[in-house]
Amino acid sequence: MRLYDFLPSGNGYKVRLLLTLTQTPFQWINLDILKGETRTESFLAMNPNGRIPLLQLDDGRVIAESNAILFFLANGTDYLPKDPFERAQALQWMFFEQYSHEPYIAVSRFIHEFCKPGDPRFDELPVLKPKGEAALKVMDKHLSQADYFVGDRCSIADIALYAYTHVAEEGGFELTLYTNVRRWLDRIAGQPCHIPITKHDF
Amino acid sequence: MRLYDFLPSGNGYKVRLLLTLTQTPFQWINLDILKGETRTESFLAMNPNGRIPLLQLDDGRVIAESNAILFFLANGTDYLPKDPFERAQALQWMFFEQYSHEPYIAVSRFIHEFCKPGDPRFDELPVLKPKGEAALKVMDKHLSQADYFVGDRCSIADIALYAYTHVAEEGGFELTLYTNVRRWLDRIAGQPCHIPITKHDF
Repeated sequence: MRLYDFLPSGNGYKVRLLLTLTQTPFQWINLDILKGETRTESFLAMNPNGRIPLLQLDDGRVIAESNAILFFLANGTDYLPKDPFERAQALQWMFFEQYSHEPYIAVSRFIHEFCKPGDPRFDELPVLKPKGEAALKVMDKHLSQADYFVGDRCSIADIALYAYTHVAEEGGFELTLYTNVRRWLDRIAGQPCHIPITKHDF
Repeated sequence: MRLYDFLPSGNGYKVRLLLTLTQTPFQWINLDILKGETRTESFLAMNPNGRIPLLQLDDGRVIAESNAILFFLANGTDYLPKDPFERAQALQWMFFEQYSHEPYIAVSRFIHEFCKPGDPRFDELPVLKPKGEAALKVMDKHLSQADYFVGDRCSIADIALYAYTHVAEEGGFELTLYTNVRRWLDRIAGQPCHIPITKHDF
């Protein structure tokens, strides 16, 4: 398998992390989205939406969207709940992540980390902040009564939410305010075979 | 089963449509999101994220996020592909819908339909329009080579994308520009048991 990715991407990191946790070998291809490397004709032929991560199977078929890739790779492992209700709960949290969390927390981090001083995108931050905080509050409330997002073990829902939450401070969010989230972050990071988002030798 | 919903919502319509296509009986509870009926203490106790649609099972358990609900309800029907790769493709399009389509096409429609003249939200429209058009282009390209989003039959991916695409003109998008999308809309609307988004007697 081949993973097209961009090292700082939390969406890409989700997939790298699951592949490593499940000890699945893969070829890692780092593209620089800031230099337009996902907007080339050859990349758009694979993913017309022009985004990483993109997983290419050995037979050439591809899957886009980080959380769809997680679902595919977790099939048959303990990271994908088998019970239909728990599986729907995992998806519920993954859609929450892409709709109510990533557009605020990941985008704030992107602006802080990649935009130059004076960039008009900094004006977006005051709008993004309360929405990202609302997402962290929903997570903290859930984690006040549970160790994981679904059932009693780490699933793809935790991996999806971990990716941008653990670097939320890079986007200007104060994680000290969310005690249950912080304990959960330590729980996920403490798993055997865990890797940091900065690991780049695959 | 009980579906908490808001009649004009495309996200809610996805669930109503699938329940009707699969001839599944349900109790329909219409809440007015504009009057804060999803922000009450009792609703937030069911869904801390304060959003419809919300599906409540007969045993009281709930599932939030329209596309997670679709996945749960389609289990065991022809609307959920059985092959793991096709299942991942369906999820890929559903995450595309929530990340690259709904935030532009549904939000533009919301502003046009529910905001009063002079509302500052109208200023968002010029930013939303090219992004919504980009999503329609990605769909049109896919549909130039396929009748459906996954495999050769209507799946939950089609239902998820149909909901806000078929009313995109209410958000200021010109569907005449997307020939393949228009043919696909007719194909989905032509299914036996199809219902319009305005149907309110369940």
